Amino acid sequence: MNDSNITRLELISENRMFGGLQRVYSHHSKLCNGTMRFAIYLPPAALSGNKVPVLTYLSGLTCTEDNVTAKAGAQRMASELGLIFVAPDTSPRGQNIPGEDDSYDFGSAAGFYLDATQEPWSTAYNMYSYITRELQEVIAANFETADLSRQGITGHSMGGHGALTIHLKNPDLFKSVSAFAPICAPMQCPWGEKALSGYLGDNRDNWTAYDATELVRQSPSKATILVDQGSADNFLKEQLKPELLQQACQESGQSLSLRLQEGYDHSYYFIASFIEDHLRHHAKALNT
Amino acid sequence: MNDSNITRLELISENRMFGGLQRVYSHHSKLCNGTMRFAIYLPPAALSGNKVPVLTYLSGLTCTEDNVTAKAGAQRMASELGLIFVAPDTSPRGQNIPGEDDSYDFGSAAGFYLDATQEPWSTAYNMYSYITRELQEVIAANFETADLSRQGITGHSMGGHGALTIHLKNPDLFKSVSAFAPICAPMQCPWGEKALSGYLGDNRDNWTAYDATELVRQSPSKATILVDQGSADNFLKEQLKPELLQQACQESGQSLSLRLQEGYDHSYYFIASFIEDHLRHHAKALNT
Repeated sequence: MNDSNITRLELISENRMFGGLQRVYSHHSKLCNGTMRFAIYLPPAALSGNKVPVLTYLSGLTCTEDNVTAKAGAQRMASELGLIFVAPDTSPRGQNIPGEDDSYDFGSAAGFYLDATQEPWSTAYNMYSYITRELQEVIAANFETADLSRQGITGHSMGGHGALTIHLKNPDLFKSVSAFAPICAPMQCPWGEKALSGYLGDNRDNWTAYDATELVRQSPSKATILVDQGSADNFLKEQLKPELLQQACQESGQSLSLRLQEGYDHSYYFIASFIEDHLRHHAKALNT
Repeated sequence: MNDSNITRLELISENRMFGGLQRVYSHHSKLCNGTMRFAIYLPPAALSGNKVPVLTYLSGLTCTEDNVTAKAGAQRMASELGLIFVAPDTSPRGQNIPGEDDSYDFGSAAGFYLDATQEPWSTAYNMYSYITRELQEVIAANFETADLSRQGITGHSMGGHGALTIHLKNPDLFKSVSAFAPICAPMQCPWGEKALSGYLGDNRDNWTAYDATELVRQSPSKATILVDQGSADNFLKEQLKPELLQQACQESGQSLSLRLQEGYDHSYYFIASFIEDHLRHHAKALNT
């Protein structure tokens, strides 16, 4: 993993924004078996050499690193609060696996932030380890002002599931957590059942490692989980089920701030409306 | 123009955002000879029945009403300041004119906010009258909280040209004006020469009615024109030429605040970085 080929970055784009720099890079990923992209916003504080906290945003189904970068407006508060904002892609790409591009909710753009155990997916679909290890090494090797001892994680929908589960399994790595309209209980919804069975096989005991509602019952997390959920979200009742996470948090003593936002849907218009609150939540927890 | 068929709107989408509503409508346009779309953000103040000022944003080449709606983040300040934010499309569509879709800088998505005099364009390419008359009537007939006595206009690139020229010709209709990286002197750049000759014919005397650098010398405008221009904008020297507008403003006594923004390019990352300043500029001028 420390091989220089792995951490070498290719700059895809660079745009000045809110006094900082919005960049997109590609790099070779060993764990994802090919080229991966991520977006990174470097706030003015980081450009002038200060060590700043890092907030990673995991995107939802059908997305790349571009959606949140172009639409959420996170850079404004990242600039003001002094946060590096990292947005990885949502899956490996171009693996030539039969069917990888056939569904919007499985395969390409639907990596579900887990490590697949089932062939042929297990060769490349290792987004859990990519986010928690490989991308960490890439950032450590290339961005000296990224303070990796102060990291938070957030995300939307499938990426909200990713943020919750990754935090709950790694509360010392990602010390703060929030989510927009997350899939809260993938073992109990169609998106999750399709993904978990496809990537992990039919034994449901193996699924619990990637289900926030299960993980919260045993996680050592001391963080307050911030979740925003729109009341007009078409996926709320069938796929997202925040009430199951809420119940599990109550039963296990996990601190949760679940906010039902009246009239908001599942779109980036919803995310843009509340991204400031989420960045402030992370900045406060990370002592910026 | 007061026929109800003209002002009847079809709602294409509605998303809650920053406490207000982001909507996209289509309607039949007589002047543009077909169906036109526009986006409109209604801030909470408008939804609760208050008359609020209206800011119209004109987009640039290749854009529709969607780019600014999704990427600029204008709704945040429109919500806070209490402004209705209107974003029309950039040209007529689907006219079946030979060549209308062949160039990015002429025809579809390149209406240049003028009234064409040359066949076959003159049948539909009447964006100047569409913005200054027909869309005004549509808004008056459908949005009773839009205070059309308090309107501002802004835009980007080709749309910055549109905002400047439309304000300078109609300073009592659009009382405040700003622009992001506008085409300042279309008679003296390739984009402008192509558009003005194609839509208006070869007699350059007819072009001056749509050239901000010409119009400013005779406009009764008392407004301060706010212009932001990125120093790293690839189109700055060949196409945009703010120095020509600046010189004309100096010579004619027009108030201009031209800000060269170091390192910024022509993208929506640039616009998003300064949209707050522009909305505050308009809100102040319109006494909100």
